[in-house]
Amino acid sequence: MAGDQAPLDRDEDAAARVALTWLAEPGNRAVWTMVQDIGAPATMKVLLAGRAQDASLRTGVQSRSAKGDARRLADAALRQAARLGARIVIPTDDEWPGGVDALATLEVPVPGRLNRDIRPPLCIWVRGPWPLGETLGQSVAVIGARAATGYGTHVTGEIAYGLADHEWTVVSGGAFGVDAAAHRAALAGGGRTVSVLACGVDRPYPSGNASLFEQIAETGLLISEWPPGSEPLRHRFLIRNRVIAAATRGTVIVEAAARSGAVQTMGRVLELHRKAMVVPGPVTSAMSVGCHELIRANPAVRLVTGLPQVLEEIGRIGDYTAERSRGPEHQRDHLDEESAVLLEAVPHRGAADPAELAAKAGLHLRTVLRRLSLLETLGLITRHPNGTVTLRPSRPQLAQEATT
Amino acid sequence: MAGDQAPLDRDEDAAARVALTWLAEPGNRAVWTMVQDIGAPATMKVLLAGRAQDASLRTGVQSRSAKGDARRLADAALRQAARLGARIVIPTDDEWPGGVDALATLEVPVPGRLNRDIRPPLCIWVRGPWPLGETLGQSVAVIGARAATGYGTHVTGEIAYGLADHEWTVVSGGAFGVDAAAHRAALAGGGRTVSVLACGVDRPYPSGNASLFEQIAETGLLISEWPPGSEPLRHRFLIRNRVIAAATRGTVIVEAAARSGAVQTMGRVLELHRKAMVVPGPVTSAMSVGCHELIRANPAVRLVTGLPQVLEEIGRIGDYTAERSRGPEHQRDHLDEESAVLLEAVPHRGAADPAELAAKAGLHLRTVLRRLSLLETLGLITRHPNGTVTLRPSRPQLAQEATT
Repeated sequence: MAGDQAPLDRDEDAAARVALTWLAEPGNRAVWTMVQDIGAPATMKVLLAGRAQDASLRTGVQSRSAKGDARRLADAALRQAARLGARIVIPTDDEWPGGVDALATLEVPVPGRLNRDIRPPLCIWVRGPWPLGETLGQSVAVIGARAATGYGTHVTGEIAYGLADHEWTVVSGGAFGVDAAAHRAALAGGGRTVSVLACGVDRPYPSGNASLFEQIAETGLLISEWPPGSEPLRHRFLIRNRVIAAATRGTVIVEAAARSGAVQTMGRVLELHRKAMVVPGPVTSAMSVGCHELIRANPAVRLVTGLPQVLEEIGRIGDYTAERSRGPEHQRDHLDEESAVLLEAVPHRGAADPAELAAKAGLHLRTVLRRLSLLETLGLITRHPNGTVTLRPSRPQLAQEATT
Repeated sequence: MAGDQAPLDRDEDAAARVALTWLAEPGNRAVWTMVQDIGAPATMKVLLAGRAQDASLRTGVQSRSAKGDARRLADAALRQAARLGARIVIPTDDEWPGGVDALATLEVPVPGRLNRDIRPPLCIWVRGPWPLGETLGQSVAVIGARAATGYGTHVTGEIAYGLADHEWTVVSGGAFGVDAAAHRAALAGGGRTVSVLACGVDRPYPSGNASLFEQIAETGLLISEWPPGSEPLRHRFLIRNRVIAAATRGTVIVEAAARSGAVQTMGRVLELHRKAMVVPGPVTSAMSVGCHELIRANPAVRLVTGLPQVLEEIGRIGDYTAERSRGPEHQRDHLDEESAVLLEAVPHRGAADPAELAAKAGLHLRTVLRRLSLLETLGLITRHPNGTVTLRPSRPQLAQEATT
């Protein structure tokens, strides 16, 4: 298994990733790890053969396969997307948004079914004219309550308009209330706005925002991990939220009821060391209860009262790449011990092959191959077509990649 | 000088303290330190003889003495107060509020005229039926903007009424807006309320609150450091604020404009390690700007959204005495080196006289006598009429004193 690391055909890789998203929810840890180890096509074969090691994954795949052929559904989705003007973006594409890869290192302290679905997307469906990675590279999420008050939509508008005016991309969901107000204000400000959906990009939910979604598809981006035709199932919003948290430099919550989805998103924002910003409101308003809870619960959550303080938190355009280029050093801190030992074994100059690395690090070859996948995903090494491995230490190179 | 430590006549002491408050603003560090060292009557003699070491104090006393005889004015004030039903409370009185003595240890990092006036009151004028110390022993300050909004007065009312209902004394200034709303709600809740004035208790300011002040004088307490007849001069509010901060277990700011008096009070609250609580509001309201600034500026400031969180911060009635009884250990950390050495020299059992302590600590007798005054003020030792000194380690005893 671990041996078939020959360069993949891009379209085969993409089709397999789409099929995998149909066989298991995006972010599934077992699937993502297998894809890192043996690639998407091989992972699909293992799953379809009923040989997944993870029992709940095996059951899930079996149940979904009974409803249709994953490969055929993936092909159909790709053809339908082409007709819609949608495209699929995968990690080897230039426009892949680097920020979401941080989900690879997320710790999962609390067990539970939904918490399994926290790994990076396998692929992202996109509708809209902008390169995805560049657009998300300088972005801020502005999210909050569906049942926003006049106060909430007003403050959302002020912040989102100002962000657009300062050339920041505004990211949000697609809900009524704060989300819709954020998109509208960003569009009014002549900026880019990205709606991250929990359903197919062909039929954005809720349909009451249809004209807004059309406008976003024309002048911003509609994106989703789920194939066209997918339903906005309830649990998918929680899975989707991790992408909003990871893909942006920071998240602003304007209004949120107690224990709302926005509060869950902020948990991810904090875990990912992104900027967590919350707008307070009247203590007499139920729509600010979640906001005040967040400020009280965690000193890393910053109270912000408007655009100037949001800009102060996220820094200037351009600072982000500088910060992102320090990312790998930070990510090293999160490596498991085997990966850390292996990374130490990679020579600072020149290349090494996996067998050499296995000998130098004192690890099994199989372990080395698994860990190299992780290190590559984290942008710490490069694996070349001839099988050799080199370090990726260069900061300018990383900074450049972070903005493409 | 240092020798005249004979027990003072209470009325002579009180009259001298009143006169000193007329000769220099309450809280004046030079005056307070002299009173600790040589007593109030001797301090008054030194000042009136133009022999104060502190140059600005000497000038101030000279200028004020030109306007009238301090002793005569003090006698007149005491007679007038008796007619009003007001009384003077001094540190040796049972009803002296122990909380204000914490001002003895306040650091003054920023130089400046007003910052000199931070030491404990020399005396406190009181109108009203309750013992002062007991009333302030379980108290919370609720303060804020004069130009409070409907939101601010509503939230103030909810919190102050609830505090009264839970048998907490509500403390505030006397201003329109949040202060008046706090007093009214506490009175409506059947609780005790204390208005800390920056002018004489005979003519509380502003006169627009006259009927409220009359009601407070009947069922709560009007208190002031300034003698009857004193004007509410602008700088006196800043001096007054330190008493609100020190005498209460915590301070809640409901609404405050940027750089307002309430914000200055909260600085003192933090310096004194009291509970600092702030109610957020709409970011669109100028009356919440100071509140949000406070929450952003200092992690020790707690955002509170209503009575339950205020009660959670301040703890239950009764906890305070337990906490106060740990005070002396805490105060030891703030002692200067000479005082710390001297305190070490006091025997754990039995008494010692100053000469023995000087020999044991390796300090001059004069220094010992000065430092013993400070240690006594901090409640760490007792000086007996025969001149001997004993430790005051007993926690139950301290706890008892904290509630009298």
